Amino acid sequence: MASQQHPYYPQTLQLPGYVPGSLSQACIVGVYAAASIIVVSFVWFFSKKYSYLSRVERMLMCWWVFTGLTHMILEGYFVFTPDFYKKSQPIYLAEVWKEYSKGDSRYAARDPTIVGVEGITAVVEGPASLLAAYAIASKKPYQHTLQLAVSLGQLYGDLIYFATVFLQDKEFAAPGFLYFWFYFIFMNGIWIVIPAIIGVRSWRKITEIVDGKRKKL
Amino acid sequence: MASQQHPYYPQTLQLPGYVPGSLSQACIVGVYAAASIIVVSFVWFFSKKYSYLSRVERMLMCWWVFTGLTHMILEGYFVFTPDFYKKSQPIYLAEVWKEYSKGDSRYAARDPTIVGVEGITAVVEGPASLLAAYAIASKKPYQHTLQLAVSLGQLYGDLIYFATVFLQDKEFAAPGFLYFWFYFIFMNGIWIVIPAIIGVRSWRKITEIVDGKRKKL
Repeated sequence: MASQQHPYYPQTLQLPGYVPGSLSQACIVGVYAAASIIVVSFVWFFSKKYSYLSRVERMLMCWWVFTGLTHMILEGYFVFTPDFYKKSQPIYLAEVWKEYSKGDSRYAARDPTIVGVEGITAVVEGPASLLAAYAIASKKPYQHTLQLAVSLGQLYGDLIYFATVFLQDKEFAAPGFLYFWFYFIFMNGIWIVIPAIIGVRSWRKITEIVDGKRKKL
Repeated sequence: MASQQHPYYPQTLQLPGYVPGSLSQACIVGVYAAASIIVVSFVWFFSKKYSYLSRVERMLMCWWVFTGLTHMILEGYFVFTPDFYKKSQPIYLAEVWKEYSKGDSRYAARDPTIVGVEGITAVVEGPASLLAAYAIASKKPYQHTLQLAVSLGQLYGDLIYFATVFLQDKEFAAPGFLYFWFYFIFMNGIWIVIPAIIGVRSWRKITEIVDGKRKKL
Protein backbone atom coordinates (compact mmCIF):
# COMPACT_ATOMS: atom_id res chain seq x y z
CA MET A 1 0.00 0.00 0.00
CA ALA A 2 1.63 3.22 -1.12
CA SER A 3 1.71 6.00 1.46
CA GLN A 4 -0.34 9.08 0.59
CA GLN A 5 0.07 12.70 1.55
CA HIS A 6 -2.23 13.23 4.54
CA PRO A 7 -4.43 16.27 5.31
CA TYR A 8 -3.38 16.62 8.97
CA TYR A 9 -1.39 19.28 10.85
CA PRO A 10 1.49 19.55 11.51
CA GLN A 11 2.24 18.45 7.94
CA THR A 12 5.55 16.98 9.12
CA LEU A 13 3.59 14.19 10.88
CA GLN A 14 4.65 10.80 9.51
CA LEU A 15 1.77 8.39 8.80
CA PRO A 16 3.14 5.54 6.64
CA GLY A 17 0.34 3.62 4.97
CA TYR A 18 -2.23 6.41 5.26
CA VAL A 19 -5.29 5.90 3.02
CA PRO A 20 -7.61 8.92 2.53
CA GLY A 21 -11.18 8.66 3.79
CA SER A 22 -13.81 7.84 1.19
CA LEU A 23 -16.98 9.07 2.92
CA SER A 24 -17.90 12.76 2.73
CA GLN A 25 -17.88 15.01 5.75
CA ALA A 26 -21.66 15.46 5.47
CA CYS A 27 -22.14 11.69 5.52
CA ILE A 28 -19.85 11.14 8.54
CA VAL A 29 -21.35 13.96 10.63
CA GLY A 30 -24.87 13.14 9.39
CA VAL A 31 -24.72 9.47 10.41
CA TYR A 32 -23.48 10.37 13.90
CA ALA A 33 -26.15 13.07 14.29
CA ALA A 34 -28.91 10.76 13.01
CA ALA A 35 -27.79 7.83 15.18
CA SER A 36 -27.67 10.14 18.21
CA ILE A 37 -31.18 11.48 17.52
CA ILE A 38 -32.51 7.93 17.15
CA VAL A 39 -30.89 6.82 20.44
CA VAL A 40 -32.11 9.89 22.36
CA SER A 41 -35.64 9.60 20.92
CA PHE A 42 -35.79 5.91 21.75
CA VAL A 43 -34.76 6.49 25.39
CA TRP A 44 -37.11 9.48 25.70
CA PHE A 45 -40.20 7.58 24.47
CA PHE A 46 -39.30 4.28 26.11
CA SER A 47 -38.81 5.97 29.51
CA LYS A 48 -42.22 7.67 29.29
CA LYS A 49 -44.02 4.54 30.43
CA TYR A 50 -42.27 4.75 33.80
CA SER A 51 -44.55 7.37 35.26
CA TYR A 52 -42.44 7.82 38.40
CA LEU A 53 -39.61 9.37 36.34
CA SER A 54 -39.53 13.16 36.08
CA ARG A 55 -38.77 14.92 32.81
CA VAL A 56 -35.32 15.86 34.12
CA GLU A 57 -34.62 12.21 35.00
CA ARG A 58 -35.67 11.14 31.52
CA MET A 59 -33.44 13.80 29.94
CA LEU A 60 -30.56 12.56 32.08
CA MET A 61 -31.20 9.00 30.93
CA CYS A 62 -31.06 10.19 27.29
CA TRP A 63 -27.69 11.86 27.97
CA TRP A 64 -26.22 8.85 29.75
CA VAL A 65 -27.22 6.39 27.02
CA PHE A 66 -26.00 8.76 24.27
CA THR A 67 -22.67 9.49 25.98
CA GLY A 68 -22.18 5.84 27.02
CA LEU A 69 -22.64 4.56 23.46
CA THR A 70 -20.39 7.34 22.09
CA HIS A 71 -17.67 6.38 24.58
CA MET A 72 -17.94 2.62 23.97
CA ILE A 73 -18.50 2.48 20.21
CA LEU A 74 -16.88 5.60 18.74
CA GLU A 75 -14.06 6.12 21.25
CA GLY A 76 -13.70 2.38 21.92
CA TYR A 77 -13.01 1.78 18.22
CA PHE A 78 -10.26 4.42 18.29
CA VAL A 79 -8.64 2.95 21.41
CA PHE A 80 -8.45 -0.58 20.01
CA THR A 81 -7.67 0.32 16.36
CA PRO A 82 -4.25 2.01 16.24
CA ASP A 83 -4.11 1.66 12.44
CA PHE A 84 -7.52 3.19 11.62
CA TYR A 85 -5.88 5.64 9.22
CA LYS A 86 -4.60 2.77 7.08
CA LYS A 87 -8.04 1.23 6.46
CA SER A 88 -8.76 1.08 2.75
CA GLN A 89 -12.37 -0.09 3.12
CA PRO A 90 -14.93 2.63 3.95
CA ILE A 91 -15.46 1.41 7.53
CA TYR A 92 -17.63 4.07 9.15
CA LEU A 93 -15.77 4.21 12.48
CA ALA A 94 -12.37 4.46 10.77
CA GLU A 95 -13.76 7.24 8.58
CA VAL A 96 -14.93 9.12 11.69
CA TRP A 97 -11.40 9.20 13.09
CA LYS A 98 -9.80 9.97 9.73
CA GLU A 99 -12.13 12.98 9.54
CA TYR A 100 -11.86 14.00 13.21
CA SER A 101 -8.04 13.92 13.04
CA LYS A 102 -8.32 17.03 10.84
CA GLY A 103 -9.45 18.83 14.00
CA ASP A 104 -6.86 17.09 16.18
CA SER A 105 -4.05 15.15 14.51
CA ARG A 106 -3.01 13.64 17.85
CA TYR A 107 -5.59 10.92 17.13
CA ALA A 108 -3.86 9.80 13.92
CA ALA A 109 -0.45 10.29 15.59
CA ARG A 110 -1.58 8.12 18.54
CA ASP A 111 -0.44 10.63 21.15
CA PRO A 112 -0.10 8.70 24.45
CA THR A 113 -2.17 11.24 26.40
CA ILE A 114 -5.04 10.90 23.92
CA VAL A 115 -4.83 7.09 24.08
CA GLY A 116 -4.73 7.20 27.92
CA VAL A 117 -7.69 9.57 28.26
CA GLU A 118 -9.72 7.80 25.56
CA GLY A 119 -8.86 4.42 27.10
CA ILE A 120 -10.28 5.42 30.49
CA THR A 121 -13.27 7.03 28.74
CA ALA A 122 -14.11 4.03 26.56
CA VAL A 123 -13.40 1.23 29.02
CA VAL A 124 -14.48 2.77 32.36
CA GLU A 125 -16.77 5.72 31.69
CA GLY A 126 -18.67 4.15 28.76
CA PRO A 127 -20.14 1.20 30.71
CA ALA A 128 -20.49 3.43 33.81
CA SER A 129 -22.61 5.87 31.77
CA LEU A 130 -25.01 3.10 30.73
CA LEU A 131 -25.13 1.97 34.36
CA ALA A 132 -26.04 5.55 35.33
CA ALA A 133 -29.06 5.45 32.98
CA TYR A 134 -30.12 2.14 34.54
CA ALA A 135 -29.55 3.51 38.07
CA ILE A 136 -31.84 6.49 37.38
CA ALA A 137 -34.56 4.28 35.88
CA SER A 138 -34.50 1.88 38.82
CA LYS A 139 -34.01 4.60 41.49
CA LYS A 140 -30.85 2.98 42.85
CA PRO A 141 -29.43 4.61 45.98
CA TYR A 142 -26.07 5.10 44.20
CA GLN A 143 -27.56 6.97 41.22
CA HIS A 144 -26.29 10.44 42.18
CA THR A 145 -22.91 9.15 43.37
CA LEU A 146 -22.35 7.36 40.06
CA GLN A 147 -23.47 10.37 38.00
CA LEU A 148 -21.11 12.60 39.98
CA ALA A 149 -18.19 10.16 39.57
CA VAL A 150 -18.64 9.74 35.80
CA SER A 151 -19.19 13.47 35.24
CA LEU A 152 -16.00 14.31 37.15
CA GLY A 153 -14.10 11.73 35.07
CA GLN A 154 -15.43 13.26 31.83
CA LEU A 155 -14.52 16.76 33.06
CA TYR A 156 -11.00 15.71 34.11
CA GLY A 157 -10.33 13.95 30.81
CA ASP A 158 -11.60 16.90 28.77
CA LEU A 159 -9.57 19.41 30.82
CA ILE A 160 -6.40 17.40 30.17
CA TYR A 161 -7.42 17.08 26.52
CA PHE A 162 -7.67 20.87 26.10
CA ALA A 163 -4.79 21.76 28.45
CA THR A 164 -2.26 19.59 26.61
CA VAL A 165 -2.99 21.48 23.37
CA PHE A 166 -2.85 24.96 24.89
CA LEU A 167 0.34 24.14 26.85
CA GLN A 168 2.31 23.67 23.65
CA ASP A 169 2.92 25.81 20.57
CA LYS A 170 2.10 23.16 17.97
CA GLU A 171 -0.96 23.34 15.71
CA PHE A 172 -2.94 20.10 15.68
CA ALA A 173 -5.94 21.35 13.69
CA ALA A 174 -5.91 21.70 9.91
CA PRO A 175 -6.68 25.25 8.68
CA GLY A 176 -10.37 26.08 8.57
CA PHE A 177 -13.02 27.38 10.91
CA LEU A 178 -14.82 24.03 10.98
CA TYR A 179 -11.91 21.86 12.13
CA PHE A 180 -10.82 23.99 15.06
CA TRP A 181 -14.10 25.54 16.21
CA PHE A 182 -16.60 22.79 15.41
CA TYR A 183 -14.60 19.57 15.77
CA PHE A 184 -12.10 20.57 18.46
CA ILE A 185 -13.79 23.28 20.54
CA PHE A 186 -17.54 22.68 20.12
CA MET A 187 -17.70 18.86 20.07
CA ASN A 188 -15.41 18.57 23.10
CA GLY A 189 -16.97 21.56 24.80
CA ILE A 190 -20.21 19.55 25.10
CA TRP A 191 -18.35 17.22 27.49
CA ILE A 192 -17.29 20.18 29.63
CA VAL A 193 -20.68 21.91 29.87
CA ILE A 194 -23.02 18.94 30.42
CA PRO A 195 -20.82 17.05 32.94
CA ALA A 196 -20.35 20.34 34.87
CA ILE A 197 -24.14 20.83 35.08
CA ILE A 198 -24.81 17.18 36.02
CA GLY A 199 -21.89 17.18 38.48
CA VAL A 200 -23.28 20.20 40.35
CA ARG A 201 -26.80 18.68 40.36
CA SER A 202 -25.59 15.31 41.70
CA TRP A 203 -23.44 16.99 44.35
CA ARG A 204 -26.45 19.02 45.53
CA LYS A 205 -28.76 16.00 45.55
CA ILE A 206 -26.33 14.02 47.70
CA THR A 207 -25.75 16.90 50.12
CA GLU A 208 -29.50 17.56 50.43
CA ILE A 209 -30.16 13.91 51.27
CA VAL A 210 -27.29 13.72 53.77
CA ASP A 211 -28.31 17.04 55.30
CA GLY A 212 -31.93 15.92 55.59
CA LYS A 213 -30.82 12.76 57.35
CA ARG A 214 -28.60 14.68 59.75
CA LYS A 215 -31.41 17.02 60.79
CA LYS A 216 -33.51 14.01 61.66
CA LEU A 217 -30.82 12.37 63.78
CA MET B 1 25.39 30.53 32.83
CA ALA B 2 27.07 27.65 31.02
CA SER B 3 24.93 24.60 30.31
CA GLN B 4 25.92 21.43 32.10
CA GLN B 5 25.50 17.79 31.18
CA HIS B 6 22.31 16.65 32.96
CA PRO B 7 21.68 13.28 34.67
CA TYR B 8 18.23 12.67 33.11
CA TYR B 9 16.97 10.10 30.60
CA PRO B 10 16.72 10.11 27.64
CA GLN B 11 20.18 11.68 27.52
CA THR B 12 19.23 13.43 24.26
CA LEU B 13 16.91 15.73 26.27
CA GLN B 14 17.96 19.36 25.79
CA LEU B 15 18.02 21.44 28.98
CA PRO B 16 19.92 24.67 28.25
CA GLY B 17 21.00 26.39 31.46
CA TYR B 18 20.74 23.27 33.64
CA VAL B 19 22.52 23.63 37.00
CA PRO B 20 23.11 20.42 39.02
CA GLY B 21 21.41 20.08 42.39
CA SER B 22 23.51 20.83 45.43
CA LEU B 23 21.60 19.02 48.18
CA SER B 24 22.14 15.30 48.70
CA GLN B 25 19.43 12.75 48.00
CA ALA B 26 19.31 11.85 51.71
CA CYS B 27 18.74 15.50 52.61
CA ILE B 28 15.97 16.01 50.01
CA VAL B 29 14.09 12.81 50.88
CA GLY B 30 14.77 13.30 54.61
CA VAL B 31 13.33 16.82 54.74
CA TYR B 32 10.15 15.72 52.93
CA ALA B 33 9.78 12.67 55.21
CA ALA B 34 10.43 14.74 58.36
CA ALA B 35 8.04 17.53 57.28
CA SER B 36 5.37 14.94 56.50
CA ILE B 37 5.78 13.25 59.88
CA ILE B 38 5.55 16.62 61.65
CA VAL B 39 2.36 17.56 59.74
CA VAL B 40 0.72 14.17 60.33
CA SER B 41 1.67 14.16 64.03
CA PHE B 42 0.37 17.70 64.48
CA VAL B 43 -3.02 16.86 62.91
CA TRP B 44 -3.22 13.58 64.85
CA PHE B 45 -2.63 15.19 68.27
CA PHE B 46 -4.56 18.38 67.51
CA SER B 47 -7.64 16.40 66.40
CA LYS B 48 -7.62 14.32 69.59
CA LYS B 49 -9.36 17.05 71.56
CA TYR B 50 -12.44 16.70 69.34
CA SER B 51 -13.83 13.66 71.10
CA TYR B 52 -16.61 13.14 68.54
CA LEU B 53 -14.04 12.21 65.87
CA SER B 54 -13.29 8.50 65.40
CA ARG B 55 -9.76 7.21 64.91
CA VAL B 56 -10.50 6.60 61.23
CA GLU B 57 -11.75 10.18 60.82
CA ARG B 58 -8.58 11.49 62.46
CA MET B 59 -6.43 9.33 60.17
CA LEU B 60 -8.34 10.66 57.17
CA MET B 61 -7.71 14.23 58.37
CA CYS B 62 -3.97 13.46 58.60
CA TRP B 63 -4.03 12.18 55.00
CA TRP B 64 -5.97 15.16 53.64
CA VAL B 65 -3.71 17.73 55.28
CA PHE B 66 -0.57 15.84 54.19
CA THR B 67 -1.75 15.36 50.59
CA GLY B 68 -3.17 18.90 50.37
CA LEU B 69 0.11 20.49 51.45
CA THR B 70 2.08 18.20 49.11
CA HIS B 71 -0.17 19.22 46.19
CA MET B 72 -0.06 22.94 46.98
CA ILE B 73 3.55 23.42 48.06
CA LEU B 74 5.59 20.72 46.30
CA GLU B 75 3.53 20.29 43.14
CA GLY B 76 2.44 23.95 43.12
CA TYR B 77 6.10 25.02 43.00
CA PHE B 78 6.69 22.77 39.98
CA VAL B 79 3.63 24.09 38.12
CA PHE B 80 4.59 27.74 38.53
CA THR B 81 8.39 27.35 38.15
CA PRO B 82 9.14 26.14 34.62
CA ASP B 83 12.85 26.91 35.02
CA PHE B 84 13.44 25.07 38.33
CA TYR B 85 16.31 23.10 36.77
CA LYS B 86 18.22 26.34 36.13
CA LYS B 87 18.20 27.50 39.77
CA SER B 88 21.74 27.97 41.00
CA GLN B 89 20.78 28.61 44.64
CA PRO B 90 20.01 25.51 46.75
CA ILE B 91 16.27 26.28 46.90
CA TYR B 92 14.76 23.18 48.54
CA LEU B 93 11.71 22.93 46.24
CA ALA B 94 13.85 23.30 43.10
CA GLU B 95 16.18 20.62 44.46
CA VAL B 96 13.21 18.27 44.96
CA TRP B 97 12.27 18.49 41.29
CA LYS B 98 15.89 18.30 40.08
CA GLU B 99 16.14 15.07 42.07
CA TYR B 100 12.70 13.68 41.18
CA SER B 101 13.32 14.28 37.45
CA LYS B 102 15.84 11.42 37.67
CA GLY B 103 12.82 9.15 38.17
CA ASP B 104 10.78 10.94 35.50
CA SER B 105 12.52 13.41 33.20
CA ARG B 106 9.18 14.66 31.88
CA TYR B 107 9.23 17.09 34.81
CA ALA B 108 12.45 18.77 33.67
CA ALA B 109 11.29 18.53 30.03
CA ARG B 110 7.98 20.20 30.99
CA ASP B 111 5.86 17.59 29.23
CA PRO B 112 2.42 19.17 28.65
CA THR B 113 0.57 16.19 30.15
CA ILE B 114 2.61 16.44 33.35
CA VAL B 115 2.00 20.20 33.55
CA GLY B 116 -1.74 19.68 32.91
CA VAL B 117 -2.14 16.93 35.52
CA GLU B 118 0.04 18.72 38.09
CA GLY B 119 -1.79 21.99 37.40
CA ILE B 120 -5.18 20.44 38.22
CA THR B 121 -3.63 18.67 41.23
CA ALA B 122 -1.96 21.77 42.69
CA VAL B 123 -4.65 24.34 41.97
CA VAL B 124 -7.87 22.34 42.42
CA GLU B 125 -7.10 19.20 44.42
CA GLY B 126 -4.68 20.84 46.87
CA PRO B 127 -7.13 23.35 48.37
CA ALA B 128 -9.94 20.76 48.05
CA SER B 129 -7.88 18.31 50.16
CA LEU B 130 -7.51 20.85 52.96
CA LEU B 131 -11.24 21.55 52.71
CA ALA B 132 -11.86 17.81 53.08
CA ALA B 133 -9.92 17.77 56.37
CA TYR B 134 -12.00 20.74 57.58
CA ALA B 135 -15.25 19.06 56.39
CA ILE B 136 -14.47 15.92 58.41
CA ALA B 137 -13.58 17.91 61.54
CA SER B 138 -16.78 19.96 61.32
CA LYS B 139 -18.99 17.05 60.17
CA LYS B 140 -20.16 18.91 57.07
CA PRO B 141 -22.88 17.13 55.06
CA TYR B 142 -20.65 17.27 51.94
CA GLN B 143 -17.66 15.57 53.62
CA HIS B 144 -18.00 12.21 51.85
CA THR B 145 -18.93 13.76 48.49
CA LEU B 146 -15.84 15.97 48.60
CA GLN B 147 -13.57 13.10 49.64
CA LEU B 148 -14.94 10.96 46.79
CA ALA B 149 -14.50 13.78 44.27
CA VAL B 150 -10.89 14.56 45.26
CA SER B 151 -9.94 10.86 45.46
CA LEU B 152 -11.33 10.24 41.97
CA GLY B 153 -9.37 13.24 40.67
CA GLN B 154 -6.15 11.92 42.25
CA LEU B 155 -6.80 8.46 40.79
CA TYR B 156 -7.54 9.82 37.30
CA GLY B 157 -4.42 11.99 37.29
CA ASP B 158 -2.21 9.14 38.48
CA LEU B 159 -3.66 6.70 35.93
CA ILE B 160 -2.88 9.17 33.12
CA TYR B 161 0.54 9.74 34.66
CA PHE B 162 1.40 6.03 34.54
CA ALA B 163 -0.45 5.25 31.28
CA THR B 164 1.40 7.92 29.29
CA VAL B 165 4.73 6.32 30.24
CA PHE B 166 3.69 2.75 29.51
CA LEU B 167 2.05 3.74 26.19
CA GLN B 168 5.38 4.81 24.73
CA ASP B 169 8.74 3.11 24.33
CA LYS B 170 10.89 5.91 25.78
CA GLU B 171 12.75 5.60 29.07
CA PHE B 172 12.13 8.54 31.38
CA ALA B 173 13.89 7.14 34.47
CA ALA B 174 17.65 7.24 34.93
CA PRO B 175 19.21 3.77 35.47
CA GLY B 176 18.98 2.49 39.02
CA PHE B 177 16.49 0.61 41.15
CA LEU B 178 15.79 3.67 43.27
CA TYR B 179 14.76 6.06 40.50
CA PHE B 180 12.29 3.77 38.79
CA TRP B 181 10.94 1.71 41.70
CA PHE B 182 11.06 4.18 44.56
CA TYR B 183 10.55 7.58 42.90
CA PHE B 184 8.34 6.60 39.97
CA ILE B 185 6.43 3.49 41.05
CA PHE B 186 6.29 3.65 44.86
CA MET B 187 5.86 7.39 45.44
CA ASN B 188 3.11 7.65 42.83
CA GLY B 189 1.62 4.30 43.81
CA ILE B 190 0.68 5.85 47.17
CA TRP B 191 -1.74 8.14 45.28
CA ILE B 192 -3.35 5.12 43.62
CA VAL B 193 -3.78 2.94 46.72
CA ILE B 194 -4.99 5.52 49.28
CA PRO B 195 -7.43 7.38 46.99
CA ALA B 196 -8.86 4.00 45.90
CA ILE B 197 -9.47 3.01 49.54
CA ILE B 198 -10.94 6.43 50.47
CA GLY B 199 -13.00 6.51 47.27
CA VAL B 200 -14.62 3.15 48.05
CA ARG B 201 -15.24 4.21 51.68
CA SER B 202 -16.85 7.53 50.68
CA TRP B 203 -18.99 5.86 48.01
CA ARG B 204 -20.26 3.34 50.58
CA LYS B 205 -20.93 6.04 53.20
CA ILE B 206 -23.01 8.06 50.72
CA THR B 207 -24.95 5.03 49.51
CA GLU B 208 -25.66 3.88 53.08
CA ILE B 209 -27.01 7.30 54.02
CA VAL B 210 -29.15 7.58 50.86
CA ASP B 211 -30.37 4.01 51.31
CA GLY B 212 -31.23 4.64 54.96
CA LYS B 213 -33.18 7.70 53.97
CA ARG B 214 -35.04 5.83 51.26
CA LYS B 215 -36.14 3.09 53.63
CA LYS B 216 -37.58 5.74 55.90
CA LEU B 217 -39.52 7.46 53.13
